[in-house]
Amino acid sequence: MCQSISDKDMAKKYLQIVDPIHDFITVYPHELQLIDSPVFQRLRRIRQLAGAHLVYPGAQHSRFEHSLGTMHIAGQAANVLKDKGYLDANDSENIRMAALLHDIGHGPFSHLFEEVLQKKKKNSHEDIGKKLILESEIGDIIKKSGFDKVFLGNLAFGNSKYQFMNEIISGGLSADMMDYLLRDGYFTGAEHAKVDFMRIIHSLDVHDKKLSLDKSALLSFESMMISRYQMFKAVYFHKTVRSAEVMLIQSMVLADSELDLTTDDIKKYVQMTDEFVISKLVSLEPKNEELRRARQLAVEYQERKLLKCVYEKIFTRPRMGKVNVKDLQDEIAKRSKIDKCEVFIDISKTPSIPLAPSKKESQSIILTTKKGEGPKESYELPISEIPLVSAISGFMDILRVYTRQQFRKKVEIAANVILGENSQ
Amino acid sequence: MCQSISDKDMAKKYLQIVDPIHDFITVYPHELQLIDSPVFQRLRRIRQLAGAHLVYPGAQHSRFEHSLGTMHIAGQAANVLKDKGYLDANDSENIRMAALLHDIGHGPFSHLFEEVLQKKKKNSHEDIGKKLILESEIGDIIKKSGFDKVFLGNLAFGNSKYQFMNEIISGGLSADMMDYLLRDGYFTGAEHAKVDFMRIIHSLDVHDKKLSLDKSALLSFESMMISRYQMFKAVYFHKTVRSAEVMLIQSMVLADSELDLTTDDIKKYVQMTDEFVISKLVSLEPKNEELRRARQLAVEYQERKLLKCVYEKIFTRPRMGKVNVKDLQDEIAKRSKIDKCEVFIDISKTPSIPLAPSKKESQSIILTTKKGEGPKESYELPISEIPLVSAISGFMDILRVYTRQQFRKKVEIAANVILGENSQ
Amino acid sequence: MCQSISDKDMAKKYLQIVDPIHDFITVYPHELQLIDSPVFQRLRRIRQLAGAHLVYPGAQHSRFEHSLGTMHIAGQAANVLKDKGYLDANDSENIRMAALLHDIGHGPFSHLFEEVLQKKKKNSHEDIGKKLILESEIGDIIKKSGFDKVFLGNLAFGNSKYQFMNEIISGGLSADMMDYLLRDGYFTGAEHAKVDFMRIIHSLDVHDKKLSLDKSALLSFESMMISRYQMFKAVYFHKTVRSAEVMLIQSMVLADSELDLTTDDIKKYVQMTDEFVISKLVSLEPKNEELRRARQLAVEYQERKLLKCVYEKIFTRPRMGKVNVKDLQDEIAKRSKIDKCEVFIDISKTPSIPLAPSKKESQSIILTTKKGEGPKESYELPISEIPLVSAISGFMDILRVYTRQQFRKKVEIAANVILGENSQ
Amino acid sequence: MCQSISDKDMAKKYLQIVDPIHDFITVYPHELQLIDSPVFQRLRRIRQLAGAHLVYPGAQHSRFEHSLGTMHIAGQAANVLKDKGYLDANDSENIRMAALLHDIGHGPFSHLFEEVLQKKKKNSHEDIGKKLILESEIGDIIKKSGFDKVFLGNLAFGNSKYQFMNEIISGGLSADMMDYLLRDGYFTGAEHAKVDFMRIIHSLDVHDKKLSLDKSALLSFESMMISRYQMFKAVYFHKTVRSAEVMLIQSMVLADSELDLTTDDIKKYVQMTDEFVISKLVSLEPKNEELRRARQLAVEYQERKLLKCVYEKIFTRPRMGKVNVKDLQDEIAKRSKIDKCEVFIDISKTPSIPLAPSKKESQSIILTTKKGEGPKESYELPISEIPLVSAISGFMDILRVYTRQQFRKKVEIAANVILGENSQ
Repeated sequence: MCQSISDKDMAKKYLQIVDPIHDFITVYPHELQLIDSPVFQRLRRIRQLAGAHLVYPGAQHSRFEHSLGTMHIAGQAANVLKDKGYLDANDSENIRMAALLHDIGHGPFSHLFEEVLQKKKKNSHEDIGKKLILESEIGDIIKKSGFDKVFLGNLAFGNSKYQFMNEIISGGLSADMMDYLLRDGYFTGAEHAKVDFMRIIHSLDVHDKKLSLDKSALLSFESMMISRYQMFKAVYFHKTVRSAEVMLIQSMVLADSELDLTTDDIKKYVQMTDEFVISKLVSLEPKNEELRRARQLAVEYQERKLLKCVYEKIFTRPRMGKVNVKDLQDEIAKRSKIDKCEVFIDISKTPSIPLAPSKKESQSIILTTKKGEGPKESYELPISEIPLVSAISGFMDILRVYTRQQFRKKVEIAANVILGENSQ
Repeated sequence: MCQSISDKDMAKKYLQIVDPIHDFITVYPHELQLIDSPVFQRLRRIRQLAGAHLVYPGAQHSRFEHSLGTMHIAGQAANVLKDKGYLDANDSENIRMAALLHDIGHGPFSHLFEEVLQKKKKNSHEDIGKKLILESEIGDIIKKSGFDKVFLGNLAFGNSKYQFMNEIISGGLSADMMDYLLRDGYFTGAEHAKVDFMRIIHSLDVHDKKLSLDKSALLSFESMMISRYQMFKAVYFHKTVRSAEVMLIQSMVLADSELDLTTDDIKKYVQMTDEFVISKLVSLEPKNEELRRARQLAVEYQERKLLKCVYEKIFTRPRMGKVNVKDLQDEIAKRSKIDKCEVFIDISKTPSIPLAPSKKESQSIILTTKKGEGPKESYELPISEIPLVSAISGFMDILRVYTRQQFRKKVEIAANVILGENSQ
Repeated sequence: MCQSISDKDMAKKYLQIVDPIHDFITVYPHELQLIDSPVFQRLRRIRQLAGAHLVYPGAQHSRFEHSLGTMHIAGQAANVLKDKGYLDANDSENIRMAALLHDIGHGPFSHLFEEVLQKKKKNSHEDIGKKLILESEIGDIIKKSGFDKVFLGNLAFGNSKYQFMNEIISGGLSADMMDYLLRDGYFTGAEHAKVDFMRIIHSLDVHDKKLSLDKSALLSFESMMISRYQMFKAVYFHKTVRSAEVMLIQSMVLADSELDLTTDDIKKYVQMTDEFVISKLVSLEPKNEELRRARQLAVEYQERKLLKCVYEKIFTRPRMGKVNVKDLQDEIAKRSKIDKCEVFIDISKTPSIPLAPSKKESQSIILTTKKGEGPKESYELPISEIPLVSAISGFMDILRVYTRQQFRKKVEIAANVILGENSQ
Repeated sequence: MCQSISDKDMAKKYLQIVDPIHDFITVYPHELQLIDSPVFQRLRRIRQLAGAHLVYPGAQHSRFEHSLGTMHIAGQAANVLKDKGYLDANDSENIRMAALLHDIGHGPFSHLFEEVLQKKKKNSHEDIGKKLILESEIGDIIKKSGFDKVFLGNLAFGNSKYQFMNEIISGGLSADMMDYLLRDGYFTGAEHAKVDFMRIIHSLDVHDKKLSLDKSALLSFESMMISRYQMFKAVYFHKTVRSAEVMLIQSMVLADSELDLTTDDIKKYVQMTDEFVISKLVSLEPKNEELRRARQLAVEYQERKLLKCVYEKIFTRPRMGKVNVKDLQDEIAKRSKIDKCEVFIDISKTPSIPLAPSKKESQSIILTTKKGEGPKESYELPISEIPLVSAISGFMDILRVYTRQQFRKKVEIAANVILGENSQ
């Protein structure tokens, strides 16, 4: 971290943090105060990709770096829109801070914990993040720096009343996605993610209060959507990555009553990090069968003795219907004559275009163009008219069945009978 | 991790692990058994660069990836020497395994723990590594695979009787150094490390039982030595990185009697990982002043409230004389009228050329050349005749004084008076 | 170019040529003789991408580097198939040489000259290449090195009787395509081309005398096809690149009777390089209207005063029907009331999957897989079942109308009336 | 080349040119007019590195791309100094244009032609460049755009009265050097050049009208100087590269009286490009012995039949004394009993730190630093105190003797006797 000082008028201090993706990330003093708070520092100990490092050993990077990178890209996007007259300097600062905080509510193992929270019908990481912004030291720092924590709490999760500002934070043109695709590609070494994000950012515009893209950057957008698709196939939904993650989720679900992982106590929540939770799980006292299994799964995860995938079905079109996981688990267990605890059903789903801030799937993108000397014109282009993107449109759904090594054969046969043709 | 199967004669299974540095690292079944053992898996939880991620947030990579990468490079080097007639297939397999295991004895925070072990006059990580190879499950796996654990235990730490094989594992042309320079440069983003390791490896030869380099690769060797120098300046000995590390070392030293970190019990030893130790340190009961300070340092480390460097002196030539750290600490404390616990002296040293396996500093490199149709000739080139390398030869020593923010001014004045001109 | 000498048994000399794509390309003595012949050296003066450097200034690279790179990749592919038992060392050497020579027949401006040859109903560069291999110094060198020039003359253009060997040289899994995608992406800076060619090559296999791919590499194949599509959109068929190229083609067509560019005299043919032809074109005596226009187009090309595109139509499905270019040109000229020489029609077409050596479009790829302990199995996967590739399947056809700046408006209106909706 | 339009207030058009080094280079309309002039376009046909592509085949890049890149970096440097209050928008535009034009006077084969001009005691490329700016269409365009051609003519070659503006264009911190190191490294594939130019540029400051560097970037400066040293060793002064270049220089010197290459007629001068001159040289009528030799050397260059280096001596300290090339050539020829035309003496020299605009070698660099809350302070740091840079300080001089293959042995013996120990 090198400290350089520019001093045109008065000494305006800023830090530059070395980052392999963006070379240098500039951090201003009020942002540094947020970053240096314990609640934020804890993101260093929450891996960006939970269990993916068991398959891609390089994937040890954390939510901390990703949050800095998202702030960096969001700031560049805001600058472009400021130069085009849609934002002022204050908006731009708000966007940077909101981007910095967009993952502040993540629990241990990031999105895995999200699945635990869902199963336990608890608040999402976004709800928790908003709470942290409003009620913890984070909010105090924001206030002291002269910003509005209520506004930031909305903007950080795409709920402000300014649609195009929300879209810089989350959705198909968001800083969040650009950073994670680049970063996850770099650290895994999968290198699928070649995002020409500078081109996209410089082509951002606003139409009817929504974010639009200059038509000349459409090819770059298309490439980015393909990179995303490939990262899902190669990394996020990788068969063995999901095996590791299914084990962790199940272990946390089983241990929740004992360890109170899904606590509503925000102070306890922010103490939980990946290794903290793992160490609790592997040292559970096996007071009952549930805890014994929770512990076993965690130990096996830690020693990389992973479940085996015996069945896989990829749905492109039509998308997967509603699956009753419990019933399916029962049925497979029954037919293969093993305990249903040994049958693990995993369902992975993602929309082909990232969800808009509204959580509704995007069906179009707004393009802006300018012919000759005339004014700019904008229009909606349906996804269906972008050939490569439309090819991956519709939900990409994967249904998988996992089990332990020793039950492999039995469960494979049962799953094939019950679920039909295997895409594996 | 993709599994591909070649089957020329019989099915010879191997894995290919995706790695951002080497694209794919091939792993053979007997190696996989070592890798999948809990003792080896624990390296995933020991960061390669201890506290450097507090300055370079990307530096979250672990000894695990580095060990795989070292095996990969060592295997390539062995193949080159095999093609040149110096090794057979069995030697090559031994070299790969020794390289894989060269860091197996590292404790939490890698080289930091090494400093704690030294202060406590305990065995080095190499001694512990050898013990693990001889006495733990690691040795059993080696034996079952038909290899000789005694030989491997020597080779892994550069003590076998075959000098040039030792040198593939450690020293100025070693796979270890090539991998860590490349990897640390990649993950920190410092990017100083541009090592044309393929060129170096293909130019390896043997002369008089020692490793030599084809003269045509001398420029690449020179570049690598410079990369190493720059990595030391920019990363390993970075002022703020060392601040974080000084805190951790001191915390571990203070807590050792309570936590028995420097245990001789190998089973306990292999349970300690970075986060495991940190969690112990931050939750120490402050039963006495030492433990209170140990805890405080660990908490401040974790929240990134780092010590400030108030004095720095870089020695190039002549090298730093023997410094009595305790006396210096006392003297500065006395003159600045603060408790000596608040004065932290840090001494960083490295030879300009990495130590040969014998731990004696290299003063020359052996070059091989071939003129016209004649036979190959080899000769020793003194380091002093390689201009850039000789420029950094002699020890590179740095003496620094750190203290807490509130004592900054006082200690700075005292240190300047006592130690003379500050290079900061 | 560094010279290293390995000498296991006897001194086997080879060169290593530094290449930005492959780091080092090893060249053996018999190959060096081919490379050092004037006929081959002339490829240094034929740009790989003709006029693309007027849009992407970095694209100055030549057929020379690409030929070396193709040999390099083909050799790696051959080694993989040798290790799998399908080829012997001699086959492998033949494949390397054939790959080295696959572009030996290219004329000035590579594929542009091909279009001139077509318009003049002359032999293709492949026919000329074969002639060079059989009848020029190239053939003599081949013979002296102990190889069969007839066989190489067939293999270099995908016509040997060994289907899978042909496919290493040309088609959807070929060394040619892998090298040009990587190389053109690197030198243009378009960076669309991220081809994981090592993965693909290591996954090559043979089924029923045809080249097949291990199923685990299907995602890499998919990525490569997408890179190819993107390179076509961004570079090869770029609107302004094609403008420059249309000018050059037209200039050469007009000047052919005067300059005898499409000569059958092989000695004259190999004297023509990009700059040689341009210098002839810009210094044409304007003896008649045709030559005046040929000169004008060449001068304007050289000074980068390019034609403007006033109409563009992209056909995806259904593909473009047969277009009578002359009639269309007449019709547009008539309606816009300008000389038909000022109306330039350009039609760009490419199959979504590169042509197989047989020049028939591929409709499938052969995959090889291995389950458990059983033998390998292979099957044909129709392109239609690879979602992204099938999205770009069918021909990608573009119809464009260009004219000079001053006729822009008129021709635009006429083209729109005659051809309907503009995709521009 | 993508065209994007920003239109905050009024439509301010600019182009973005894709470049592999800088991703996108923005070009404003008045700059585009310069670039699109035939005098500037001709730089596309003058290779950046003359004969280096005979050793590094990728090195086909031209002065054209380098000039754009230099403008790009100079503009970024100017922006930094504008933000720090040392320059206004108009200065910044002048700096960009001067950087764009700094190589406009280069003749065929860039620096090789410079050596011919020197031998013929003609004006340097800088004098010619100034003339082109003042007296050709270039000057007209500058004037029409509202800029001062006299000022630009000085600034472009480091002779304006504003020292720090000169230094952005040429010298040890110049945009010129940063671009050529990066670009030459990229296109050759030598990859020695890792210049953290963004860091250096953001650390520029002004002290006492001279360019200074923030102390925190000293390590980056050091790295850049080392990259430069390595590029000289590996590329610019590579033994075989110089062989090719010695041949070209000699051929041009011999043919000058016939072809009037060193013409004072600026119109003729700007018609000469690499391939134009080569084609003249290889088709010289051998009217006399000089022309016969000129032609032979050119033909052999073109067919890559290069001279052999039989002697090499590298001087580090003390630097090479004055060498009388003619006498040395005579002496070697006499002793080896061959025609003196067959003895080629080559002397390569470069200062370890690039020349300042004043052409005097730099002995120091100005560093700026800021302690605590105080004002910035600047001081001169002698090169001798930067260890690695000082190691390469003093001139790096190489003396080489080349001859044809058949005289190899004789000349080698003679040179060794006369010149003493060979460093080869």
